Parts: sequence; C-alpha cells; structure tokens
Amino acid sequence: MATIEDVAKLAGLSKTTVSRVINNQPYVSEEKKQLVLEAMKQLGYVPNSSARSLRNQKTEIIAVIIPRVMNPFFGQFVESLEIVASQYHYQLIVCQTLYSAKKELDYLNLLKTKQVDGVIMTTLLNGWEAVEPFLEYGPIILCNEFDEQANVPMIHMDQNYGGYVATKHLIDQGYNKIAFCCGNVNSNVSRAREEGFRKALREAGLYLPEQYIFRNVFTFEDGKNVLRKMMEMVEAPTAVFTGSDEVAAGMISESKRLGVRVPEELAVVGFDNQAITELMEPMITTVNQPVKEMGHLAMEVMMEKIKTRRYKEREVHLLPLTLIVRDSSKLANYNVY
Amino acid sequence: MATIEDVAKLAGLSKTTVSRVINNQPYVSEEKKQLVLEAMKQLGYVPNSSARSLRNQKTEIIAVIIPRVMNPFFGQFVESLEIVASQYHYQLIVCQTLYSAKKELDYLNLLKTKQVDGVIMTTLLNGWEAVEPFLEYGPIILCNEFDEQANVPMIHMDQNYGGYVATKHLIDQGYNKIAFCCGNVNSNVSRAREEGFRKALREAGLYLPEQYIFRNVFTFEDGKNVLRKMMEMVEAPTAVFTGSDEVAAGMISESKRLGVRVPEELAVVGFDNQAITELMEPMITTVNQPVKEMGHLAMEVMMEKIKTRRYKEREVHLLPLTLIVRDSSKLANYNVY
Repeated sequence: MATIEDVAKLAGLSKTTVSRVINNQPYVSEEKKQLVLEAMKQLGYVPNSSARSLRNQKTEIIAVIIPRVMNPFFGQFVESLEIVASQYHYQLIVCQTLYSAKKELDYLNLLKTKQVDGVIMTTLLNGWEAVEPFLEYGPIILCNEFDEQANVPMIHMDQNYGGYVATKHLIDQGYNKIAFCCGNVNSNVSRAREEGFRKALREAGLYLPEQYIFRNVFTFEDGKNVLRKMMEMVEAPTAVFTGSDEVAAGMISESKRLGVRVPEELAVVGFDNQAITELMEPMITTVNQPVKEMGHLAMEVMMEKIKTRRYKEREVHLLPLTLIVRDSSKLANYNVY
Repeated sequence: MATIEDVAKLAGLSKTTVSRVINNQPYVSEEKKQLVLEAMKQLGYVPNSSARSLRNQKTEIIAVIIPRVMNPFFGQFVESLEIVASQYHYQLIVCQTLYSAKKELDYLNLLKTKQVDGVIMTTLLNGWEAVEPFLEYGPIILCNEFDEQANVPMIHMDQNYGGYVATKHLIDQGYNKIAFCCGNVNSNVSRAREEGFRKALREAGLYLPEQYIFRNVFTFEDGKNVLRKMMEMVEAPTAVFTGSDEVAAGMISESKRLGVRVPEELAVVGFDNQAITELMEPMITTVNQPVKEMGHLAMEVMMEKIKTRRYKEREVHLLPLTLIVRDSSKLANYNVY
C-alpha cells in the first residue's frame, strides 16, 4: 500500500506539502496541488481518515443509539434521520443496545474517541450523570426519551397525555377493568405514560389491582403471554392499554386462538400507529407518535449544534400525540367501517 | 482538554514512553506504566482513537450494510449479528442504503478510511468490480446477496429453490394463473427466485403473461397497490408469489377491503416467515429463511477472516430454505388448523 512518503517522492515535493493538500490547507499553489493529486492517483494512495481526523476533527458521521432495530418505531425514526443526514452529506450509523446499559456507554465512546461528530440517543439506560461527561467530546441529543437533569436538546412527546387520552377513551366506552402494560421500567417514557393512565382511572374513580400491571412487555410473544395470564385471572380485565402496537397485535392474535372476542370481551389499545394496526382484524386503536417529524427535527437540531458548537444547554421540543380510534376498542359501532 | 504532552509532563516521562503505554507496546517498565496511567487518570486524558488506530490499525467495529432497517428480515439479521459480535467484544454499526448505490460506496469507505475492521454486505447495488477494490483495506462478506465474480466469503440461501418450491405448491393446489412480484430488479436474489418460479410454471406447462410480473415491490403499501392492479385485469391472477411477507400482508389486507376472498379467489404466498405471517387472517404461507443462522455464521466467518487475514478467496456457505404452508394458499383443507 502506498504511503504519504511514496506520494511525496513521486510528486517531487515535501511530505508537508502532500499533507497540506490532503487536509485542504492553504498556502499550496494550484500547480503543486495538481502534482500531488496526480501522484496520489497513480499510486492509488488513500489518505487515512485517522490521520486526517487528527487534524480537522470532523468525521461527518452521526451515530444514533436505539434499543432494537426490529422495533418499527425506531426503524421509522432511523429512516427519517437518514434522509435528513443525506441532505447534509452526513452518514448515519445505527447502534443497537438490546437494552444493555453497558452497550449504551460503549457506543457513546464513539464520540469520545472522535469516530462520530454527534450522538442521538433514543433511550437512557444509564443515569444522566454517566452520560453527561461525554458532552466534553461533542453534541448529544435526547430523542423520545427525556430526563429532568439533562442539559442538552431534547425532542419528545407528551407521553403522559398519550397514556391519559387512550385510557380515557376506554373508560368512555364503558370499560372499567383496565390492565396496563409497559416496556422498559426505568424509562421516563414508561413512567409518564403510566402517570397518564393512572390519572384517567383516578378521575373515573376506578381501582387498579396490582395484578393488572405488566412490565417489561415488548414483543408479539410478550403480548401473547400477557393475554394468557390475563385470561387465567378469576376477574380478568375487560380492556388493556398495551403501550405498543406489537404487543397489541400479539394479544389480538392470541385472543382469536383462545376464542376471546375483541373488543366485546376485551378492548385492546396499542401505541405508535404502526402499519400493523391497519392490517390486523380488528384494526387496532392506537396513539399516533409523529416519529418522522421527530427524526427530521432531531437531525436538523444536530446539524445546528455541530455548526454552533453550543449544545450544553437544555432545550425542549415537544411533539403532539393523537389518539386514533379503530375497531379493537369501539364497542358501540363495532364492525362499522 | 489534556494532551499527551500534559500527561508526559505530569508523569515526568517522555512523550514516546506515554505513547508506548497508550498503545500497549513492549519495553516499558511496570513502574513507568503506573506513572503514566496515574497521570492520565488525574488529567482525565483520553487517548484519541484516531491516534491509536494509526498504530494498531484495529477498531473492533464491524459495519453491516442493509437496504432498510424497517425490513424485519434485515432487522432480525442485524440482531443476530449483534449477539455474536458482543461475544467477541466487537461493536456492530448498522448502515442503511435505502437502495442507493452511492450510499453503499460511501459506507464501504468506512473500511478504506479504517473506521471499521470489516464490512458485511447484504445487498450489492454496485457491480462487484466497484466493490472489489475495497478488499485492499479489509474483509468484506457477502450475505444474502451473492455474485458469481465475488472472490470473498458468501453466505446465502438457495433462492432458486425458494421460488420453485412455493410456486410448485400453488400449482399442486390447482392454481394456474399465478402472478410474480419481486423487489430490487438488479439483485441476484430476485433473479434466482424468478428462475425458480419460471421453472415450476414451465414444468406444469403454464403460461406467464407479461402483465402478471411486478417488480420493485417492497412494502405493505406496494402490496395493496399491486392487489388493486391485479383485480382490475380482465383476466385476474388467482394466485401470487409475492417474494415478501410484508407485500403478502398488504395484499391480504387490501383483499378484505375489496371483498376478494383469500385463498378461494386469490392464493397468496409470502417470503421470509416473519412474525406477521402468523398474525394475519388467514395466516400466510411463506418460505422460511434461516436468518438468525445466517447472522451467526456471518459474524463467525468475519471474526475468522479478521484473525487469519485471508479473505480474498471465494467461499460459499449455502443455507436451506423451507416452505411453510398456512391458510393463505390452502384450498383443500382451508380453515383446518
């Protein structure tokens, strides 16, 4: 493999001059520049980005940390980040933690070791105090997940409202034995949704038995399992806030197998408004999260922070959630669509 | 931010010695090593990976290039790569091309600029002649996609058989007007499936009208659109090989809306055996691709190639495909499950 020395030799110029051309620095005549470029081409020489980034400190790569590529919510988010990143000629690399706090720190290290220019985090598996020191090395944006202490840009949705509006809808339909599912227990997203859920129950004077609460529920399979557990109860719930379209789809599928009618015997509400909500039968009532908008905004904010280099300031962007009522929870006019 | 000079000064040692400690090189006494580490700790000095990788040339990062994070086939693949990478203390970064050939080359550049130790490619949007030069900089493994010219390890499935066995099944059920969908037209995967599809028709003496062929069909929405087009034909197909579970699900959903009965009026066969095939009603007949096994094997092969540094050799690993018959194509005993 050709080295910088080989290029200098062939071009008949000093290593310093070659290096200047590679790093796009001033004070090199156009003639010398051409000689260097020609020599590089002849020798097939490729400047090592490690050497280059030692100088200009830019990688033009953004990392996004998500829990699972398989979750379509994060899949859509990543796709929308990618589109904006391309417009700025940035590359996006996707890092998945599979909910491991250690992996989250390992990927944050890409910032510390200057392999990326910025990091977008969608979960916070470590405490903020563990993440904050990485801000020394570049911008971090919190997206979807949020934290009271975090002194960075945050883009998220009003999850409390999401939990509330979906539960209120169930209560308005006449359901009064309502179960609750959530994913990651340490997440502020889960916590806020649960608060909204409990607020709606409280307003209606409804009681929430401990056994109606299911945590760490993420996948189709988890949905099937929870449904079986609910149906084994002496007093089974008649409605469920699942916190996830995947979980809701798993429950509806398992309901069919067990002969439980949705929504007559069990109303099911999802979360995210994924494509699957319109493919299932009955179609799934859900809470729409503006995930594309979140992705666009996150990347725009990142680009601005890289440019201005002022990113250690708390800055909150709140995006709206909307309830979408479909047949999985519509008692009155079920089958009318 | 502390520099290597600061560390040398505080430790009372030369920069060369500090550098030796950082890069884990020999000929440094344990005593000096401790002095350096202590100084680094006091100053909060972090060795720049760019500087480090100039020497040891290892990043312990593997990149995987996939078309879309949103496609659950690639999502599962990435998850299974991640699990094996972790066991080897490697990080995995995911790069999505959204089917852009330019992006594919941009991401391959991560290898050239030594930001990753190896690349796993799942599609080949450029000709092999455009990819091959990158082999100068590290191992590339072709996974899922394959190429006759490629002189690298390849792990893929017998897609010709997949196309054949699914179509043969439709013919055996009595269907004789069978449409064909595929995704990326330039892919050898699509080409091989089409060959298998045509082989089955040929053996049965069936004719394939040009209008029964749909290319560049990827998503739920695409499935819905193709279904509408098929149903508008004077002589509509009575069965369809979709090449994708997502497309199949979209078609079944749209069939319901239009009152087309599956499988009585239209048999639908998917591809991949994704979770959605068991959630839809009717459940979807599909071809199982051993995607987890492919992921495991790909990462194991990558680790071996990084270790042995011998990777410019053609090496083919073929994994089996299996037809899974469900209700979306079962005429005789429909509803028996």
